Amino acid sequence: MARYKIDIEYDGTNLIGWQINSQGSSVQSILQDAIFKFCGEHTTVYSAGRTDAGVHAINMVAHFDINKQFDAVTVMKAINFYLLKEPVSVLNCQIVNDSFHARFNCINRHYKYIVINRPAPLVLEKNKAWWIPYKLNLDAMQQAAKKLIGKHDFSSFRAVECQAKSPIKTLDKCTITQDNDKIIFEFCARSFLQHQVRNMVGTLVDIGRGKPYDIDKIFEAKNRSAAGVNAPACGLYFVNAIYDATNVDL
Amino acid sequence: MARYKIDIEYDGTNLIGWQINSQGSSVQSILQDAIFKFCGEHTTVYSAGRTDAGVHAINMVAHFDINKQFDAVTVMKAINFYLLKEPVSVLNCQIVNDSFHARFNCINRHYKYIVINRPAPLVLEKNKAWWIPYKLNLDAMQQAAKKLIGKHDFSSFRAVECQAKSPIKTLDKCTITQDNDKIIFEFCARSFLQHQVRNMVGTLVDIGRGKPYDIDKIFEAKNRSAAGVNAPACGLYFVNAIYDATNVDL
Repeated sequence: MARYKIDIEYDGTNLIGWQINSQGSSVQSILQDAIFKFCGEHTTVYSAGRTDAGVHAINMVAHFDINKQFDAVTVMKAINFYLLKEPVSVLNCQIVNDSFHARFNCINRHYKYIVINRPAPLVLEKNKAWWIPYKLNLDAMQQAAKKLIGKHDFSSFRAVECQAKSPIKTLDKCTITQDNDKIIFEFCARSFLQHQVRNMVGTLVDIGRGKPYDIDKIFEAKNRSAAGVNAPACGLYFVNAIYDATNVDL
Repeated sequence: MARYKIDIEYDGTNLIGWQINSQGSSVQSILQDAIFKFCGEHTTVYSAGRTDAGVHAINMVAHFDINKQFDAVTVMKAINFYLLKEPVSVLNCQIVNDSFHARFNCINRHYKYIVINRPAPLVLEKNKAWWIPYKLNLDAMQQAAKKLIGKHDFSSFRAVECQAKSPIKTLDKCTITQDNDKIIFEFCARSFLQHQVRNMVGTLVDIGRGKPYDIDKIFEAKNRSAAGVNAPACGLYFVNAIYDATNVDL
C-alpha cells in the first residue's frame, strides 16, 4: 500500500462541490474515477477542504491510498491523462507516510475571494468572480475586516446546516486589497465553519456599500440573521493547505 | 447622428473572431445585433483590431454611428442589457466627434500573450492561455525578444494570407516577464501584420525550448517558413488601443 498526497486545481463552475453525491459530478468522484481507470483500484480521496458547488481551487491538497506502488510522477501523469476532459488537474504528487491525512493534519487553510467592482458585466472572469456594479468603500471594508481577525464565536457567520462541534474559530488573516477594479479578500485559519468565508465576504461587501453593520454586534448576536448575505460561490478559491513538514515527508 | 466610442471586453473562445462572417458568431455581429435591439438601427461597428477566432480582448476600442442621440451611459447600459448572454461586454462609452475612427486614428496597439509553463494541464485558465508542459528558458527568450524591437521587414512573421501593403513595421515594445508558472509576453506597435504577434510568440517559445533560431536570420529570410510555429489563439489578448486626445474629445 502506498499513500499519495496530491495538489489539485479545479474549476468548480459545473461541479456539485468536493464531496461525492448522486446529484452530479464532484471533484472527489472525478478523481476517484480517474484513479480507478488508471490502476483498477477503488479508493477514497480525502481533501483538506470540502468546498461547495461553484467554488474553485488553485491548490487543494488531498490524499489517497492504492495497493500497487508507482512512482509519484507516473501517478500524476496517469491521473491527468484520465482527467483531460474534466475541470480538475493534478499539479503535483508525492508519496507520503501513511500517517499523513490531508484533512486532519492540516494546520492552516488559505482562501481568497475575488470581487470585480465595475459597471460592466463580467466576460473574461464570468463564473470566476462576484460582479458588483455599485461602488464599494474599500476603507470601510478594511476597517471591518480587522475586527474579524482573532478568536471569536463565529455563529453569526455559520451556515444553518453547519455540523462543526464548536462555533469558536481563530481567524489568522483577513485582508482586502484592490488592483484596479479587482478586490481580493484573503483569509487564513486552521479551519473554517461551513459558509464562513462567503458569509464574511457578503457582510464586508454589505459594509462596503454602506450598510451600518457593526462586527462586534454581529459576533455578540450569535445568530446568522445578524450578519450580511452569503457571497456567491463563484468568487471563492481554496488557495492552499499547510502541514507540518514532519507529517508530509516519508 | 452621433458617433460613440466604446471599450469592449470579450472572451473569444466560442467566436469566429472580430469580423462578421456567415460561419458563426463574431464580436462585430454580436455588437451590431445588440445595438439594433436597443435602438432599431442597423449600424457598422469598426474596431482598432480585427482579432482572429479564439483571441480575447481586455479592452478593444471600437466606434459606431446611430441617428437617434442618447447619452453615453444609456447607450452602454442598453447594449450591455442585450449582451447579457453573450461573451462580450461594454466597459465604457463616450460620444466622440465624427472624425474619430477606431481603426484609422489608432496610433498604438497593445497585445499580451499568456503562456502557462507547468507539467499539469490547465483548468482555471483553460482556453485563456497556452499550456506548455516542457520547461522554457526565459533568458534565451528575453535575449531574442530584444532583437524583435525596432523597424524591420516582418515578412517571416506574417500570415501567408496577410493583405497589408507593406511588411515593414516598427515594434515599440516586446517584453517577457515571468510570475511563477505564468509567462507574459507584451507587444506594442502602431500596427501589426496578420498573425504577427502569434508568430513572434511561437518563435520565441521555440527558442525557449532550445531551437537554434537566430532572429536576424529570420528577418533576412523574409519567408514565413524561416520562423517558428504560430502560437495558438487562446493565449492572445488585445489589451488597449491608443489615440491622440484631439481625435477623441468632442
